[in-house]
Amino acid sequence: MPTFNVQIFEGRTLEEKREFVKAITEASCRTIGCTPESVDVIITEVKKEHWSTGGVLWSDRS
Amino acid sequence: MPTFNVQIFEGRTLEEKREFVKAITEASCRTIGCTPESVDVIITEVKKEHWSTGGVLWSDRS
Amino acid sequence: MPTFNVQIFEGRTLEEKREFVKAITEASCRTIGCTPESVDVIITEVKKEHWSTGGVLWSDRS
Amino acid sequence: MPTFNVQIFEGRTLEEKREFVKAITEASCRTIGCTPESVDVIITEVKKEHWSTGGVLWSDRS
Amino acid sequence: MPTFNVQIFEGRTLEEKREFVKAITEASCRTIGCTPESVDVIITEVKKEHWSTGGVLWSDRS
Amino acid sequence: MPTFNVQIFEGRTLEEKREFVKAITEASCRTIGCTPESVDVIITEVKKEHWSTGGVLWSDRS
Repeated sequence: MPTFNVQIFEGRTLEEKREFVKAITEASCRTIGCTPESVDVIITEVKKEHWSTGGVLWSDRS
Repeated sequence: MPTFNVQIFEGRTLEEKREFVKAITEASCRTIGCTPESVDVIITEVKKEHWSTGGVLWSDRS
Repeated sequence: MPTFNVQIFEGRTLEEKREFVKAITEASCRTIGCTPESVDVIITEVKKEHWSTGGVLWSDRS
Repeated sequence: MPTFNVQIFEGRTLEEKREFVKAITEASCRTIGCTPESVDVIITEVKKEHWSTGGVLWSDRS
Repeated sequence: MPTFNVQIFEGRTLEEKREFVKAITEASCRTIGCTPESVDVIITEVKKEHWSTGGVLWSDRS
Repeated sequence: MPTFNVQIFEGRTLEEKREFVKAITEASCRTIGCTPESVDVIITEVKKEHWSTGGVLWSDRS
């Protein structure tokens, strides 16, 4: 606790993901007072053809 | 808002997904009064070997 | 299949939810070819103080 | 009902998943009194580079 | 790992939930080979007016 | 994008949640290069009697 499920588009590098989960964990501990080991971050990569906003798939947006 | 996470089996075409998210968005705006741009639909495709009903994987059903 | 998890702000009436899930189910069957009985829609109501966009809680927006 | 979404690391065999969903379904029916057919289990496999604990990706742990 | 998110209707007693999470955890360890401490089970109770099957809310079914 | 769903135990103040979502949003933009307005954070509060680790509800731990 806390457990994060975060959905992002495909395309980030491993190094970006590494920095991302580290930063999310630090931000959590600093603001809601938890130990780092209690923080889980689970990343789900979503294809642009699987996410729509306003009824339009992101793969169809230019 | 609203944000949809919808789980479907693999196998739909891109055109089916395109019509699906458009229809879901329209149905939402018509019934709960939101603007299209506020509607996100995120599709997750699930393999039949990763979904069970009644304790049996769908890949094991004939 | 499909199974929808949809997050909306609090405040809709029961009648609006009733029309909403009916419309989502019809839209699904029409566009991706499933039987109505295979469609589950699960609504999660979210308080405005539990949803942020741009780092600002919706309860803090005027 | 109940509907399970369960996140596990990649790497289980089909036979392990088959026994897993069967056991989860039986455990549910025995303890909360439901029929097997009402139990859905959806497995999501997560890569070790997409899950962090304590700010460190599991792919970076030795 | 594994992390379960399970959605059930409201109405179970605390004792039922206690037996349920214990049984799910044991079933997981027995079938996919994990330690009990690695198993998280998070229960979400859903109102019958927030879950529909076939386009009909469960609160509207007799 | 990104969209966060984060599960925490009940008990944080509104001010803590306010700082939390702000920090998560900033950490995301800094590490994976997104605009703040594209970041949604949805908090789900979980009762201790609805979360188990190792088969034991957190409400049963002393």
